[in-house]
This record gives sequence, structure tokens and C-alpha cells, in this order.
Amino acid sequence: MAALELLSEHACFGGVQRFYRHVSTVIGLPMRFSVYLPPQARSQTVPAVMYLAGLTCTEETFMAKAGAQRVAAELGLALIAPDTSPRGAGVPGEAESWDFGVGAGFYLDATQAPWSRHYRMETCLISELLPLLAPALPVDAQRLGISGHSMGGHGALTLALRHPGLFKSVSAFAPICAPTQCPWGHKAFAAYLGADTTQWAAHDASALMSECSTAPYPAGILIDQGLADKFLPTQLNPHLFEAACAKAGQPLTLRRHAGYDHGYYFISTFMADHLAHHAQTLLAPRSS
Amino acid sequence: MAALELLSEHACFGGVQRFYRHVSTVIGLPMRFSVYLPPQARSQTVPAVMYLAGLTCTEETFMAKAGAQRVAAELGLALIAPDTSPRGAGVPGEAESWDFGVGAGFYLDATQAPWSRHYRMETCLISELLPLLAPALPVDAQRLGISGHSMGGHGALTLALRHPGLFKSVSAFAPICAPTQCPWGHKAFAAYLGADTTQWAAHDASALMSECSTAPYPAGILIDQGLADKFLPTQLNPHLFEAACAKAGQPLTLRRHAGYDHGYYFISTFMADHLAHHAQTLLAPRSS
Repeated sequence: MAALELLSEHACFGGVQRFYRHVSTVIGLPMRFSVYLPPQARSQTVPAVMYLAGLTCTEETFMAKAGAQRVAAELGLALIAPDTSPRGAGVPGEAESWDFGVGAGFYLDATQAPWSRHYRMETCLISELLPLLAPALPVDAQRLGISGHSMGGHGALTLALRHPGLFKSVSAFAPICAPTQCPWGHKAFAAYLGADTTQWAAHDASALMSECSTAPYPAGILIDQGLADKFLPTQLNPHLFEAACAKAGQPLTLRRHAGYDHGYYFISTFMADHLAHHAQTLLAPRSS
Repeated sequence: MAALELLSEHACFGGVQRFYRHVSTVIGLPMRFSVYLPPQARSQTVPAVMYLAGLTCTEETFMAKAGAQRVAAELGLALIAPDTSPRGAGVPGEAESWDFGVGAGFYLDATQAPWSRHYRMETCLISELLPLLAPALPVDAQRLGISGHSMGGHGALTLALRHPGLFKSVSAFAPICAPTQCPWGHKAFAAYLGADTTQWAAHDASALMSECSTAPYPAGILIDQGLADKFLPTQLNPHLFEAACAKAGQPLTLRRHAGYDHGYYFISTFMADHLAHHAQTLLAPRSS
């Protein structure tokens, strides 16, 4: 069986939208992801932005709803969107909540049984999927950016901070900025990482950033947050990430938008700005 | 109970995306539709394009997947997207097929029992929904365009031809151009309109156009069709509408796109061109 199984492809803005499945050794199950290749990828390798979706989403959500391909085609960026959790792991209780288990892998490796067998999204993405993609697709592994929404914004910020140098640019939409301090994070981390809360900070973007002695992303991080987002008061805590960035000297553009909520009508509105942010670093003339 | 019940609203590209329900006297059931109002609508009435979706879709599909709001916000166009059929009519067999009954109202009034009680989408849209909208929303009823996809492309072309003067501009994505000559149309028309096929031509865009002695839309009709569309060989027949337009002297821009299929990755790619086509007429300086 091929490492990457192409499930479907669709012409889109002069490039191609693809959906793939691969047998994940890390997860122990088949995993799905989507890739958009811009027209420029027909003749050259292109930089890529990996987008991590939020609770309940799949590898399709971003590609169907964010309106990103138009901008990616203009800029010459590939887009990569993995699924948000293992599917079919069969862990008791995994499908009982919309904010935990299936569709809610939180982009980390569970350390606690029964989750630790399959729920290993961090290693799946970083050590398996990305290394699989670069040889198979015209994507430049040296020019990767990362973004995401809500739980996926948490994923983007934490993976960027936990894997220095892997991603060259970072942004997020309405990210869970401090999962150790909100109900979604408490629920997921207690099950995936255990009751010992000292283990949690390693997966909390604000905690990770506040430990940085110098700015890990000197070109700046872009975050957009809607002020009509019903999850803002209890779950997202952008002010904690803002404070952590200030402490670390990390340049942060945190834009608060009156009237915007937590959904894809918000995300699509500001998608072009995010891809432009990534392109500024990923497509900058290289001196090396 | 209010004529229009606002179900949800979402800020989007500086305007607002809304979902409504209204009790339809024509259908005898509640019906849903969506509206996008661009930022310009805060201070003035704006022209609107009504978009009719295809088989299996709802009032949400176009707004979530087509990427139209960005362009509508730039141009100052409102967008209106109704549902594709009655819901909950309880007609035996209405939910057994994906291409007939629920999600497949074909934008006509059924004349045959048991469908004729509820399946009356044409009158619902033309005589009920549109007259309801203009007084309630900042939409200019004198500047309406119509577009649609697949079954909704059939709807856009036939409603434009059956209601002269109501719509000022017309376009379609991969429309069913001659339902009297394809399996989807045969199945739907036989049930909704009966076995007497002489009644069918009045709901067939190619037949209607071929009866026109002068061009009903002198500013031109725009149609995009993907050549990798799996429904093109058996269901869509754009060449028949092309021939009918030639016969009537109707200017038609029919663009055939290599590689593109029937889905929203195709539609989103060419959405900006369609809204620009509508804007050319709807936003032209008025001499009256």
C-alpha cells in the first residue's frame, strides 16, 4: 500500500485540492489530511502553511469553508490540513463529548491510558506526516508556517514553541491561549496528560511563551480574535498570551474585532491577512 | 409571529451573514433562507443576487462554501440563498432519493398529487420570499440578479425566462440546461408535473430560450462549466442551451474549464467573475 493514498482531487483556483489517507504507525490507524497545491507548484517546490482545525472539525473543514485557496494561489503557498483526532480508536467514551476525544485530539501525545495508545497527534503531525509530505509533494520542508483555529490555534502556538525552527511563521484565529486555565483544557489535559498538573504547562502556549528568554519568532506572531466570540470570556484567554509575549519580548499583533464570532465567517474574513503574514516570511528573498 | 424570524447572524467581511426562517403560506411549512448584507447596506439599499443551490444542498451551502461574501462586500451586493425544497412535508418517498424530493424541489410548482400540496418552490420564491425581503431588508427589488448551480442553475435560467423583467442579470454554474432530456429531469418532472411531457417544456431552459424571438437578456448570460464534471455527459447539456441562445440571438458566455468538476472548489474559483457579471448590470449608472 502506498504511503499516501489519494482519495480525491479537485481543480481549484488553477491549482489542485487533494484529500489523502495514510496509515499512521504513530496513531495505529488510518489518518486523513488535505492538501492544496497552488498553480506555482506545477513547476517548483513551494512553501506551505499547515492549518490545524478546531473542535469537531475534520481535514475538510478549512478547505471547504475558509476561502484560503484563492489567496494561496495568488501567493504561491501550499496548504496542509490534518484531521483533528484519531478516528475509530474505540476508546470507551471517546465519542461522548463534542469537546473531548473524537474531533478533539488537542495536538498532543496523550500519556495516560487508555488514550496514550492512539491519541498521539503531536508525533503524528511532526514526526510522521510532515516528513512524509515533503518527498511526495512539491512542498519545501524548509519553508513551513503553521496556523490554526481555537483548539487548532492552541495547536499552532504550542507546536511552534515546542519545535523551534521547524516552522518559520506562526498565526492563529481565536486560539485557546492558556488551556491550563480554561474548562476545555482542564477536561482534555486531565484525561490525556493526567492529574499531575505540572505536566500540563508544556502544552500551554502562554506558559511556554513566558519561559522564553528571547523572542522565538522575531518576525512576529499574528492572532485575530472576535469580540462577539461566545467562547472568549471562558475559554480563550488571549490576554494571557499577550502578557507572556510582552514578558518574552515576542512581537505579537493581536487584533480584536468588534462583532465577529468564533466561526468560519470570521475566519474567512481575515484569512488573506494570515496568509500574507506567512508569505512575508516564507516567500522572503533568501540570503542563504 | 414575525414574518421573518432571524435564526443567527455572523459578522463577515464587514457586513453580516444572516439565517432566517419564515412561515411559508405557499409551501405550508416553515422555510429557511440566508442573506448576506455587505457593509454598504448599512447606509443604503443595495442590489441583490439570489443564488439557487443544487441537489442535496440547503440555505447554508452557498454561504459556507462559495467564498462569495468577500466579493459581495467589495462590490456592494447582497446575496440571498433559499433552501432547495420543503422540509418535513411528509410526502411518502420524499426522502428516499438524493436527487428527488427533499433537497430537490427543482424550483417549480408541482402540479401532481401528492407533491402539489407542498412542493411549490417557484411561487414560494417569486411571489412570497422576494416580496417579503425588500420591505424588511435594505435590498433594492428593482435590482435583482439570479444565479445558481446544477439544479439551481436550472432554477436560475428557468425563473429568469419565466418571469421577464424580475431579474436584471443571470448566470449559472454547471446548470441542468435541458431537464426534459436528462435522467434527473425525467425523474423529477414525471413526478412533479406528470406523465404529459408537453407540460415539461415550460420548465426547461433550453426549450424556453428557443421560443424567444428576441434576446431576453441583451447584456448577456454567463455560464461556467467544468469539463471534468462527472454529470456533464448525461445530465447537463450545455450545448443545447448554447444552441437555443444562438437561435434566439441571446448573447451567451459559456466557458468550458478543463479539469474542473461539479463541486464548490469549482464554483468558488469562478465566483468573483459571476458577481462581477451581475454587478455590471445591477450597479450600472441608471439613466432613469
